[in-house]
Formats: sequence, C-alpha cells, structure tokens
Amino acid sequence: VIELRYLVGIDLGGTNIAVGIVNSLGEIISKISTPTKRGRTYQLIVEDMARLVKEITDKEKIEMKDIIGIGIGSPGIVDLESKRVIYSCNLFKNAPLCSELGKYFNVPIFIENDGNCAALGESFCGAAKGTASSLTVTIGTGIGGGLVLNGKIFRGFNYAGIEIGHHVIKIDGESCTCGRNGCWEAYSSATALIRNVKRAIKEYPSSIISELCCNDEENINAKIVFDAYHLKDPTAKIVISEYFSNLAIGLTNMINIFQPEVIVLSGGISNQGEQLLESIHDLIQKSVYTRHFVDFVLPQTRIKIASLGNDAGIVGAAILALRKGYL
Amino acid sequence: VIELRYLVGIDLGGTNIAVGIVNSLGEIISKISTPTKRGRTYQLIVEDMARLVKEITDKEKIEMKDIIGIGIGSPGIVDLESKRVIYSCNLFKNAPLCSELGKYFNVPIFIENDGNCAALGESFCGAAKGTASSLTVTIGTGIGGGLVLNGKIFRGFNYAGIEIGHHVIKIDGESCTCGRNGCWEAYSSATALIRNVKRAIKEYPSSIISELCCNDEENINAKIVFDAYHLKDPTAKIVISEYFSNLAIGLTNMINIFQPEVIVLSGGISNQGEQLLESIHDLIQKSVYTRHFVDFVLPQTRIKIASLGNDAGIVGAAILALRKGYL
Repeated sequence: VIELRYLVGIDLGGTNIAVGIVNSLGEIISKISTPTKRGRTYQLIVEDMARLVKEITDKEKIEMKDIIGIGIGSPGIVDLESKRVIYSCNLFKNAPLCSELGKYFNVPIFIENDGNCAALGESFCGAAKGTASSLTVTIGTGIGGGLVLNGKIFRGFNYAGIEIGHHVIKIDGESCTCGRNGCWEAYSSATALIRNVKRAIKEYPSSIISELCCNDEENINAKIVFDAYHLKDPTAKIVISEYFSNLAIGLTNMINIFQPEVIVLSGGISNQGEQLLESIHDLIQKSVYTRHFVDFVLPQTRIKIASLGNDAGIVGAAILALRKGYL
Repeated sequence: VIELRYLVGIDLGGTNIAVGIVNSLGEIISKISTPTKRGRTYQLIVEDMARLVKEITDKEKIEMKDIIGIGIGSPGIVDLESKRVIYSCNLFKNAPLCSELGKYFNVPIFIENDGNCAALGESFCGAAKGTASSLTVTIGTGIGGGLVLNGKIFRGFNYAGIEIGHHVIKIDGESCTCGRNGCWEAYSSATALIRNVKRAIKEYPSSIISELCCNDEENINAKIVFDAYHLKDPTAKIVISEYFSNLAIGLTNMINIFQPEVIVLSGGISNQGEQLLESIHDLIQKSVYTRHFVDFVLPQTRIKIASLGNDAGIVGAAILALRKGYL
C-alpha cells in the first residue's frame, strides 16, 4: 500500500508568501506564491495563505484529508507554546498565525522561525542530509543561522537563540542594524559587501564596477562585485579578499563554538558556489582550533553549499508537520 | 529503606589529581588530592588515582560494592566512544584512562572533558540547578566553556566543541595561544588582564599596583589588579574598565548565540562575585539582541556566579556515573 499523503509548507517572507505541497521525502510537488503586501493585519495575510493552500490543493486535486498538516515559517521570534509570532520587525507583533489559519483548515498546524525552517530543510533532505548536527548560515541582507541537533532545532530557552550574525568580530567596528558595533553581519552580509564596494569605488572610480553598475551605485549588488572579481578588477579583488577573510573568521568562530558535522552556506552569497568554498577553505583550515589535532584523526567540520536554495523555507516548514511538532 | 550508595569523582588537573566521594545529591562527603607530577605516563597517573580512591573509601569506611561508579574529568579532547583522552596538551595523548582504571576497580567508569564536568556540576546541583540550559564560562588562565542542554552535555560532533574562548572578537587583535589573533581569551582571561596591567604600569609606574606586587611584576595576579581597582587606583581603573567591556562583549556574543537560561561564571575571575556581575550587567543589557523585545516579556538570560567553586570538577565527574554515561 502506497500512502499518498502530503504536507503543506508556507514560507512567509517580507516580499512574498510562498506555499508548497511537499511529499514525505521533502520533495516539492507544486508551489505557488503571492505578494505579502506588508503593513496589512495578520488576519489578512493568513486569509491569503488559506486562499493559496486551497488554490494549490485544488490544482493538484489533493483533498484536505490527505494533508498530514501545515507548517508555517515566519520571520521573527516565534513562541512555540502559544504558537504565535511574538515579534517580526517587518510584519507584525503578537500574531497567533496557527489559530488564525486553523479557522480555515481542520488539520494540525505548526509554526517556526523561517531561518530555523531553512536549517531543518537542509538537514532533512538538503546539503546536511544524514548528519547528526548542522549549522545553516544564511548570508544575504543580513546573516542568520539555524542549528539542527539530532533532527531537532536548537532555539535557546526563549526561542531567540542562534543570532549568529550578531556576534561581534571586531570591537568598536562597523555599526550594525542591531545597535552594536562590529557584528559579523556588519562585515559578511551582502549588505556589508555592497557598502564596502561603494566606499572603494569612491577611491578607485576607474574600477570596472562603475561600468557594470552603469555608473549608478544604487545598482550595485553582490553578483556585480563577484563578476568584477572574476574579471580580475583590482578594486573588487581588494574588497572581496577582505570579505573572504572576515567571512572565514566568523565561520571559524562558529566551528570552534559548535563543531557541527556540516556548515551549510545559504542565501544570496552562496550562489558563488564551489568557488566560494575554495576561497575560504584555506583561511579556515589555518586558524580553526581543531587543526592542532589532525594527527589524531579528529574529524573536521565540512562546509557545503545549500542544496534547496529558495525552496528550503517551504520544505522546512512542511517538515514541521511531518515531525508532528516534536522538534 | 535509605539507599546508601556513592559516586566517586576524579578531577585530573595539570597541577593536582583530586578525588572525592559524592552522594546522589551531588554533595561531596570527603575529598583528597595528590600532585599530578606532569610528564609521567598515563599508567602512573592512573595508579595514583586508584591509590587515592582506595585511601578515601577506606577512610570513609565505604566498600566498593556501595560505589555506583567512578567518573573522571580530564583536560583535553576526550573521545567518548573509546573512552580515552585523545589529546591533552599538558598531560598526554591517546590515553585510555577508563580501561586503565578498570584494572583496579570492577565498577562502571566514565570519562569527560573537565570543563564539561564543571558545567555539568553547576547544572546538576550548582548555580544553574533546575535550568533547562546553561553555559558555564570558566575564566582563568584561559577561557573555557561547557554547555548543558536538558541535562545533557553538548560536545559537537567530534567532542571538540564549545571552545568559546577561541572565538575572535577583534580582527587582527592580540595574539592568542591557539595561533589566531583577537580571540576572546586574549582579552578576557586572567592572563590577558595581567598582560594588560603589566603594559599599563610601564606607562604609569606610580600605580599602587607596583606597590602591591612589591615592585616585581611577576607577582601580579588578577586579585592584585582588582584590589588596586577597589582602592581607586587610576591605572587599575583604566585596565579593569576595558577588561569589563571586553568581557561583556564576549558574554553578549554568547547570549546572542545560545540564549541559555543561565550563564554561570566560574574560575579565578569569578571570585570577584556580585561586584563583577554588577559591573558587566549594564554593558550587556544595552547591547544584547533581545533587548529589542523586552516589551514582549521575552525572558532574558541570567548571569550568575558559580556556586561549586573548585569542587565543580569532582562533582561533575561523579555525576557522570550517576547518569550512567547517557549524557
């Protein structure tokens, strides 16, 4: 008997609400999305979630009785006891998304922080599949993290843990959105990279970056900087070398602290793929604490590129329902 | 029926081997110690351990049948599968302490890293008793850590995790014993404090510290620096203020990363007690990530002074036997 039952994963983002139907292997069968339209009440946003779930199940001819459960990944701090979003700076505060969505569907509904969902997805069926411990580091606008230990998400006692982007790597350094100075995020996020390149082309206006961004620095993004780097632009080389160095410092800190079996790099910067891994490998190996013990065949943390890409949020949210929230 | 069975904890240090008889509440009934005499083989060191266990059980008139088990806390990286010390820079490498001690006693024998033992002790019956998660930060010659989650020690996949002293807080900063630059340990250990004060009294030789150390800077220790600080010595004030600032940066990093219910401060520096906590409290509260969410009644990590002091190692090692090694 083949059991054909499905999971629904909802990835609530600042820009889009994405809904996917996922099978028990973590594979996405079908997905759909709609703009989040920030500034609305949580009730209206949940109404859109419900509409998308109905639309996609109708389209795939899946009845609600065949849905094991629905998982929601939301930005911000999520209280698992009251199943509500306590605070999300871009969306809302005190939003009981599960009970609200429960008005539409009579299936178990779970909720979790979106970074944790992505980490769970990568652990369950992505780049960290089969590992006992993995840290997923999402490098984009900011730096986020999710730690999965023996299949369970580590959250800290108040669900606010693993804010790894907000650990200081340079006393009195660059100012960070969190109000501190010198956070890793202020050096190794895509935002930090773009800030640094804007500074650099002021000093070296002949950089090819000026051309690649059509002389409008508002067009600069991480891809342009890496493109210029691969074109051997000296300005990009200076900026990217420093970027790799700081990224490696933060990742080495994470290894020394967690010694996870795998670190998964996710988010926009991870699009640089294997070249990124090669660039930071030696920087990490020459400074990680366990390098002193390689003679003793001590296994070392492996760093990998995320394999689920933008789908990690949907997949991870869906898996919440598979694991029946025991995570 | 009162069951009168006991645990034995062995705290193997670079200076002394300490052995204690502990009851099932984690209370030390009796303890004894002998110099480690570094440089000897592990077999000779274990012979001394066995001698101490016999001596103390004889003295307390406890028969081996009433010993539930023996736990050993050792410096270095301990492989729990082969129950051996893989590497301890001060003592030995590849030392199967459990099987060696098993030649003397027919009881279950367990082994664990000494920092983890101290953390377990504080969690089981010390300053973090009753918490679901606690990080014990030992500040002495270096900075060590132990994380206990739901009664279990977190070790990382290769048993080498939670080297929190070796996370960089200042890019290109002070050189660290581990070979990196800018590690937290290079700023917030007692060793770093003493280094900084030696530099400062070169610049300000009129500091009272010169007097307190009898004009021999080899006599300077952390206590002298704090004594001078409490005597309002301006040089000590400069050094200690910077010390508190860096200590708070590292502790805030730890909170943002782990959000443990309690952080326990242990080791020599923690002798400064409540005054130390008061000095760093505001520095942490003004920068910790969760300060943004105090309006949402998000509970905050508490920082406490260790309550077991030098006994934490014995107690934690003994508890390994109580928990039958499932930790």
